[in-house]
Amino acid sequence: MTSDISPPAERPTVRLLPKANARAIRHGFPWVYANEMVLDRRTKKLEPGTLAVLEDSARQVMGLVAVNPSSKIAARMLDTDASAALDAAWFEVRIAKALDLRARLFDAPFYRLIHAEADGLPGVVIDRFGDTCVLQPNAAWAEALIAPLCAALVKVTGVSVVIKNAAGRTRALEGLDDVSGVLAGAAPQGPIAVSMNGATYLADVMGGQKTGLFYDQRPNHAFAASLSRGARVLDVFAHVGGFSLAALAAGAQEALAVDASAPALELAAQGAAAMGAEERFATRQGDAFDTLAALRSEGAQFDVVICDPPAFAPSRNALEAGLRAYERIARLAAPLVADNGILGLCSCSHAADLAQFRNASVRGIGRAGRRATLLHTGFAGPDHPQLPQLAESGYLKSLFFGL
Amino acid sequence: MTSDISPPAERPTVRLLPKANARAIRHGFPWVYANEMVLDRRTKKLEPGTLAVLEDSARQVMGLVAVNPSSKIAARMLDTDASAALDAAWFEVRIAKALDLRARLFDAPFYRLIHAEADGLPGVVIDRFGDTCVLQPNAAWAEALIAPLCAALVKVTGVSVVIKNAAGRTRALEGLDDVSGVLAGAAPQGPIAVSMNGATYLADVMGGQKTGLFYDQRPNHAFAASLSRGARVLDVFAHVGGFSLAALAAGAQEALAVDASAPALELAAQGAAAMGAEERFATRQGDAFDTLAALRSEGAQFDVVICDPPAFAPSRNALEAGLRAYERIARLAAPLVADNGILGLCSCSHAADLAQFRNASVRGIGRAGRRATLLHTGFAGPDHPQLPQLAESGYLKSLFFGL
Repeated sequence: MTSDISPPAERPTVRLLPKANARAIRHGFPWVYANEMVLDRRTKKLEPGTLAVLEDSARQVMGLVAVNPSSKIAARMLDTDASAALDAAWFEVRIAKALDLRARLFDAPFYRLIHAEADGLPGVVIDRFGDTCVLQPNAAWAEALIAPLCAALVKVTGVSVVIKNAAGRTRALEGLDDVSGVLAGAAPQGPIAVSMNGATYLADVMGGQKTGLFYDQRPNHAFAASLSRGARVLDVFAHVGGFSLAALAAGAQEALAVDASAPALELAAQGAAAMGAEERFATRQGDAFDTLAALRSEGAQFDVVICDPPAFAPSRNALEAGLRAYERIARLAAPLVADNGILGLCSCSHAADLAQFRNASVRGIGRAGRRATLLHTGFAGPDHPQLPQLAESGYLKSLFFGL
Repeated sequence: MTSDISPPAERPTVRLLPKANARAIRHGFPWVYANEMVLDRRTKKLEPGTLAVLEDSARQVMGLVAVNPSSKIAARMLDTDASAALDAAWFEVRIAKALDLRARLFDAPFYRLIHAEADGLPGVVIDRFGDTCVLQPNAAWAEALIAPLCAALVKVTGVSVVIKNAAGRTRALEGLDDVSGVLAGAAPQGPIAVSMNGATYLADVMGGQKTGLFYDQRPNHAFAASLSRGARVLDVFAHVGGFSLAALAAGAQEALAVDASAPALELAAQGAAAMGAEERFATRQGDAFDTLAALRSEGAQFDVVICDPPAFAPSRNALEAGLRAYERIARLAAPLVADNGILGLCSCSHAADLAQFRNASVRGIGRAGRRATLLHTGFAGPDHPQLPQLAESGYLKSLFFGL
């Protein structure tokens, strides 16, 4: 583990191979793949997260990178200035720019503040819940520099609590542990109330999935809610009630949330109660596929049905099985949609692109004997910016069909 | 020209070739291509718009189609019931379903009511402006049945004015004239005030481009407006002020609308005045490319810049030139965006897909020496539904970049 802000003069140098796409990197592509870099014995010995000077194959300096010789992404560009000192001031500039965008986008301080590469901090994710930030240092360079990073975060945002969430799956690839903790202030006692799309969500920032709430679906929650006035709403894979509580806030007649996690549904119910909507809200704990089948056998009908499953196709190897699972969800959900109703289907699978996911969904709807029009295609919200060079890999897609 | 609602028994029959994709049509694909249909002498003699019974190559009846033997799309599916009578009641069912969706989506009756195939009426577009509908019968079958179509429209919606707009470019392919007129009620005197995203637009439904207002950009106007509070906004290819008036409604400090059309800018200025925002609004009439260059030489800077040009790549032949034009727009617009500003770039070109348009835009931004993150990708609003089988051809894309 690198442990400090190396004096620039002492940074090691790593070099691109002639075949590397130096032009793309100069134009903002943020990664150097392992097969583009000279991996000599000296470079292979660098510890994950080492700060190094990147040169092209003609020894022209390109910038400052964080190296991980054992990763497919062997280096991540941090700064085009190879001599930049990665101190708190350096982090402050990036966090302030990210904060400026979010402050323009949102009325209240609840959002993803830092979304890794696109916010200039590769491997770093920070979600903000009012006075509390949850920081995921998913790259070794950021773990090593967590002190100036945390100091900059507190200084720029003024938050009093910073929690470190070390559950990210990529941390092991970077040689990092999975020990979460509190970096600043005192751990919150109980869930934090988050206002979004007029609903109140309860986010368990210490123990929940990811950071306790999924901000990425915010615009898709809003779209579904816009169609939910007076509607009977079914929210499958509901987590803490993302779609169902937004629908209740928009005037849904009733909402049923289905999830395998009893603690998540308990938070959803607490959110509904905080909104004064508990009489219009019900939960059903269990497997989503089983519950969809059971609802059908009960003859249940809903005006709006949303299915927001976990990634069924997280990797290329899982693509075929994942697409079959998306098709099955669509086939099981479509019969529950009343005539002239809405079916919302979501995928957070990197490996399944938009057309593949849409085709699987349409196949499933067709196999249920229904026909659909496509009303809306949504992605992650703007507090999840992307580098355009990586935009094809946009993971979240939400499709809304009229049935 | 077919002139009546053929008694079903006397309808001619047309037949698929064995190589046709009958399965796709049975599953909802709405078109029969000319190379999929038996085009014998009898079929070739059918006038555009003739209602016919479609059979598969094994002579199984598939449904009722409108035939145009001289079009690449030789037949369009109207009903899976080949004996359906296309009377006012038949139109009422489709219009009522379309109205039900729009009534759920919007608080006020200003929207695209019928979006052709996806609303069950191939070649028919109807935009609603409160008590007035503008009907575009862009297919011969609909022109022939315009009387029951118009009667159904009035009955279902209760509007008192129906205007026929015959400017659609596809009408000539269908053997139709370009004579517009008034089908019901009295032509409005002057433009109609339309409330959308908190702004007031003035739509000249008798003489404007298309039907006087572009409803398709509504959600993209809203997204740009959400970033425009306190901002200096530049709206290029502004038409009647789509992006600029929405930005003013959201609290923009000032907005400048650029368009080649003086009448369109005059309507934009009237809209700004109706909103009481005339002091924050300015216009500049002229060529967009020239004006972007002039603004740069004047050193102008804006916090939000939007370019929403006409289709630069309306066909495959025009794709390369069109992509170069999109790149040029991006290259000319990017220097006008202040630091931490927003650049919105739109394409309504069928031929340029999302990735091609995004790449051209990013190239242009890069050639201007700027780097961008992608904040949001938007499409046409949900009052422009699509058949999922045709979703790849979704024409409207809006990209919002952070610079």
